[in-house]
Amino acid sequence: MDERVREHADVLVDWSARVEAGDDVVLSVGPDAHDLAVAVAERLGERGANLLATYSSGELTRAYLRAHDGTFDEPPDHELALFEETDVYLSLGGGRNISAMADVPGETRQAYSSGRTAVREARLGTRWVSTVHPTRSLAQRAGMAYEEYRSFAYDAILRDWEALAEEMGRMKDVLDDGSTVRLVSGGTDLTLRIDGRTAVNSAASVAYDSHNLPSGEVFTAPYATDGEVTFDVPMTIRGESVRNVRLAFEDGVVVDHDAERGADVITEVLETDVGARRLGELGVGMNRGIDRYTDNILFDEKMGDTVHLALGRAYDACLPDDESATESAVHVDLLLDVSENSRLEVDGEVVQRNGRFRWEDGFDG
Amino acid sequence: MDERVREHADVLVDWSARVEAGDDVVLSVGPDAHDLAVAVAERLGERGANLLATYSSGELTRAYLRAHDGTFDEPPDHELALFEETDVYLSLGGGRNISAMADVPGETRQAYSSGRTAVREARLGTRWVSTVHPTRSLAQRAGMAYEEYRSFAYDAILRDWEALAEEMGRMKDVLDDGSTVRLVSGGTDLTLRIDGRTAVNSAASVAYDSHNLPSGEVFTAPYATDGEVTFDVPMTIRGESVRNVRLAFEDGVVVDHDAERGADVITEVLETDVGARRLGELGVGMNRGIDRYTDNILFDEKMGDTVHLALGRAYDACLPDDESATESAVHVDLLLDVSENSRLEVDGEVVQRNGRFRWEDGFDG
Repeated sequence: MDERVREHADVLVDWSARVEAGDDVVLSVGPDAHDLAVAVAERLGERGANLLATYSSGELTRAYLRAHDGTFDEPPDHELALFEETDVYLSLGGGRNISAMADVPGETRQAYSSGRTAVREARLGTRWVSTVHPTRSLAQRAGMAYEEYRSFAYDAILRDWEALAEEMGRMKDVLDDGSTVRLVSGGTDLTLRIDGRTAVNSAASVAYDSHNLPSGEVFTAPYATDGEVTFDVPMTIRGESVRNVRLAFEDGVVVDHDAERGADVITEVLETDVGARRLGELGVGMNRGIDRYTDNILFDEKMGDTVHLALGRAYDACLPDDESATESAVHVDLLLDVSENSRLEVDGEVVQRNGRFRWEDGFDG
Repeated sequence: MDERVREHADVLVDWSARVEAGDDVVLSVGPDAHDLAVAVAERLGERGANLLATYSSGELTRAYLRAHDGTFDEPPDHELALFEETDVYLSLGGGRNISAMADVPGETRQAYSSGRTAVREARLGTRWVSTVHPTRSLAQRAGMAYEEYRSFAYDAILRDWEALAEEMGRMKDVLDDGSTVRLVSGGTDLTLRIDGRTAVNSAASVAYDSHNLPSGEVFTAPYATDGEVTFDVPMTIRGESVRNVRLAFEDGVVVDHDAERGADVITEVLETDVGARRLGELGVGMNRGIDRYTDNILFDEKMGDTVHLALGRAYDACLPDDESATESAVHVDLLLDVSENSRLEVDGEVVQRNGRFRWEDGFDG
């Protein structure tokens, strides 16, 4: 077995999920994530945790959902009972075809998802972590050769997380202490309020309330956004290619939008509900192990020299206790490259210019 | 998808497990059983059952067990909770290497198994059915080409189960009404008492208290065995090839034994405990879809024109309510070919001669 698979398992079990002896662990295994699952099982055995592996296959779910009449009013009591007794949930994504469920009607998916709300909530109550095993299917989506993609993925995953967590802690402190963010870049001059909000140091560990591996971003929940922004990182949203989306905000709400490509899907997102016209997230990518866009949000939004904003739902963790998140059915991330001609200011002080943070060598305040 | 995979799923879900709307189903999927799992998921969706798929991999379990310190005193509460709420458990065997766990120490396996007693009992309390997806690994064990093996397996699985259950019901009636069985074949003249015992019509359905697909045998729990028996069907027991095992019984107990090959492993079995020197099962194979030995007991013991006896544990279902089964840690099946120069008598009347039953054309009483 490739030593990097074992190292991935080490990071996942020890740094990310903090597995201890006696923990009841559910390991969700994608059809092509077998090798990582074996490495994780080995580590779980060493730790003396209990292991139940589940099988997560888009093809299985597709077959089930297409045959189902779409009424999901008998809740899955057995799965609910499982997750109510689960301490740690580790999801090892790794399918053979990211489009495996492309022909399942949207309303069936929605009904299935709604019927599983209690299961999902129980699962989110565990020390859960999502990661992916680099597969040929993901390599294909990224437009990369398989071995090339594996190197890319392990560069992102096998970080010195402790050091990165410390650096990200600086960014969190700046955001927590700040009131106003100004983001300036090509086609972008945006002001956002963040006072009263708490940033999350997303260091790929449940100890930091961070549940993705890789991670490496600091994010908060902005409000009262004003100005214009251009998202110059190409991506795919709901199966549509989008490019150079431009949004204009007044008093926190999108008042105008267009795009060089994919304007229709942005319109569709904005029209979902009231919350979809507001920002739920301002995120600063700080994982320098990620050196290119692969059209996979799990990686893209963590990339160093990027900033992202999300339309829709905010994370509760960012909000004061007495405030609940913007209600929205969507959370759609959009990315800016900030490596050149860009600056991020907090309360008038430049924190990041052309990708460099003010505590880094080469920062030109 | 091969139509036979769909038919296999139909038999499993409808005939074997009797799945109904709202049933909470656990589907255990072997790494190479994906195609059957997809077909079963489709059928479960049609029936409106709830589906949770688990992943059953010898490689995963091996990695976990070899890394574990071997003390399993923290029970897997999450898995227990799952099976306590499960209505139907469907196990789709289908690994890539039947020897995947060959280097796990026996005592570790035993400790793991003991630590999971409660989980196993909860699982046996469901409408559980075990089947196998024909894989290349099983084809290899059978010494057959892959497509050849698939034909073999589906011939065994895709029977007219209703008609076979009816025919097997005749055999069950004969055994239930009988007191003494005499089995005569080359090297075999054995007398067994069966009065007071109840035969199981193992028709591959939970409705018949039968939990294997394929099945197709009628079995009971004999006692007071006398005489000699030669098991002429070659097989592998605990990794050892055995051939022409001979056992001599007096008053229900093995008093002498030898074998053309594998005598040591038979000695090892007999010395396990007191119960291992007694017979726990007399079974009559009645599945004529199985036309050859493949050294897989799931198939071999169901084959038409065979009779099998098991050393060790009896099934509770065969015993009177006030009697508990012979205690033994083992249940080791051994087979006789009864297609030639053979007869099975119950209370002096021939029920089967040279493979033909008395209700069949060609029976020569």
